[in-house]
Amino acid sequence: MIFSAQTGNTIAALGESQLIEHIRQWLGPASPPAPFGIGDDCALLPPAKTGHTLLTTDSLTHGRHFDDDTDPEKAGAKLIKRNLSDIAAMGGRPGPAVLALLAGPDLSTTWLEAFFDGIREACLAFDIPLTGGDITQTSPGQFSAVLTLTGHTDKPLLRGKAAIGHSIFVTGTLGGSILGKHLNFTPRLEQGQWLAARSDCSALMDLTDGLAKDLPALLADACTAALQPDHIPIAEDARTLARKTGKSPLEHAFTDGEDYELLFAIEKNTTPSGFIRHWQARFPQLPITCIGRVQPRQEESTLIDAATGKALPWQAGYEHFKSQ
Amino acid sequence: MIFSAQTGNTIAALGESQLIEHIRQWLGPASPPAPFGIGDDCALLPPAKTGHTLLTTDSLTHGRHFDDDTDPEKAGAKLIKRNLSDIAAMGGRPGPAVLALLAGPDLSTTWLEAFFDGIREACLAFDIPLTGGDITQTSPGQFSAVLTLTGHTDKPLLRGKAAIGHSIFVTGTLGGSILGKHLNFTPRLEQGQWLAARSDCSALMDLTDGLAKDLPALLADACTAALQPDHIPIAEDARTLARKTGKSPLEHAFTDGEDYELLFAIEKNTTPSGFIRHWQARFPQLPITCIGRVQPRQEESTLIDAATGKALPWQAGYEHFKSQ
Repeated sequence: MIFSAQTGNTIAALGESQLIEHIRQWLGPASPPAPFGIGDDCALLPPAKTGHTLLTTDSLTHGRHFDDDTDPEKAGAKLIKRNLSDIAAMGGRPGPAVLALLAGPDLSTTWLEAFFDGIREACLAFDIPLTGGDITQTSPGQFSAVLTLTGHTDKPLLRGKAAIGHSIFVTGTLGGSILGKHLNFTPRLEQGQWLAARSDCSALMDLTDGLAKDLPALLADACTAALQPDHIPIAEDARTLARKTGKSPLEHAFTDGEDYELLFAIEKNTTPSGFIRHWQARFPQLPITCIGRVQPRQEESTLIDAATGKALPWQAGYEHFKSQ
Repeated sequence: MIFSAQTGNTIAALGESQLIEHIRQWLGPASPPAPFGIGDDCALLPPAKTGHTLLTTDSLTHGRHFDDDTDPEKAGAKLIKRNLSDIAAMGGRPGPAVLALLAGPDLSTTWLEAFFDGIREACLAFDIPLTGGDITQTSPGQFSAVLTLTGHTDKPLLRGKAAIGHSIFVTGTLGGSILGKHLNFTPRLEQGQWLAARSDCSALMDLTDGLAKDLPALLADACTAALQPDHIPIAEDARTLARKTGKSPLEHAFTDGEDYELLFAIEKNTTPSGFIRHWQARFPQLPITCIGRVQPRQEESTLIDAATGKALPWQAGYEHFKSQ
């Protein structure tokens, strides 16, 4: 259990100094020596290369992003991978990170060690030095972790640049993430970097709040995405979930959050079929789908059915805080 | 009040998209346009200069760092200034920042707007672009904010470098911060930068957990700080607090947290009196005190009374999570 009734097994019993020392040990080689790691007022980042530095922050909260039944190692890895997906969504490579923990005094050190096992393995797998952080005591029964991750790219791929005639692509399959993928996804770093190295990718982002909510952000001003609903790659878990919820699998694919797939646009001089051949040669394991094309906006809707010209439903997506 | 029983005045009523739009407006000129600000997967940092990039993260939690009686503008400013103190403690200049909010659905938007007023004014005063962030829903009645701040320095001043014969200095006065200074302090950025530009400052840090706990971290291995307890600059609020707690003012000066003053060492070729003359010419408003000198460690204690050679008491300082 994440929170412990046995006072001997809590972070309160350990105290902050001991807790930091434990964390340093749990992180092992993912924790570089100060001043490039834990131990000074700030972390020093190695001298900058050319290009752009990226900065992103993302949180993981008990009861929201994972629960008592979640393997703590997977929860720790999820925190790292959520942030990596944002770096992938800019076409970047990850760099040093800092971690803030907000925890009740009753947080179990056994649980926390397993959480850090997941963090360490993900940091090592993706070559991220965890260089420092902060620990704050909150009310009992509360746990959040906030990771801020730096990155680097020579050519950042932005949102809001998909222009008229560009083709819209999505990696993998969509929907039903809550049945498992939200913990087991792979951030699409290699794919993002490969897109950034091409000259024909005009816009890139990752899917976190669902296609219906996220796709409008990919488009340039006064543009509409004309989609082919029967081309949307629906995940098997979206179909499974649909049998329970009574919604359609397509609705799940459009509106479920936490897909962590890439959504991007390719300029019109590259044909979709030509692009797909390049992709399949480079990433034979990861499906790629052209789901539509960018058109001038006629009416208010930014997502329309390419066949009928009608607005697509479900354009709200996952709205945090709102009661669903 | 920070949390609102009127559902119309909460962030849950607003929803995430509207909340982000409000935050952008509340921040005004402190929020640069995307991709250098809110709106893409990562923030882009302007091309790097020479020298070192700094990275630090620090949190602010309701019920711990401020309470219902705290002016929300001062709470917002405190979050920025806590992080600025870490940049000052490396001799750095602040750069772009990202902000993660963790809030219950019942967080009052009125309160949050005033909190962001404080953030905006502090960002503008210290020239910090707030470039992005994350919002996560937590349990009702909970609020934390985590700021990650970048910085830059040509010559970082580290901890753990105060060596034998070096003089130990502290800015301002110490103790009793809880009576007001913890909200009203000024991060010592100019002073940190001035020290970094000199050639004789060997080690620098800021005081956050109290002199007794923090000072050992300033020292090189196998060193002891030989202090003159009657030279410690005791804050008036430490004396006021001592009258309530029954502890001595000196104990408060040694062990109270949140001084946000600079603690540093000056190499032995500079005399303390000569250094103080330079300081007073440059910073006539801010007191500076030489509190002791670094000696070889004879016994286990890292803090001794220079007159008697005996270990000083109160070496625990403020220990987070531990019951006091």
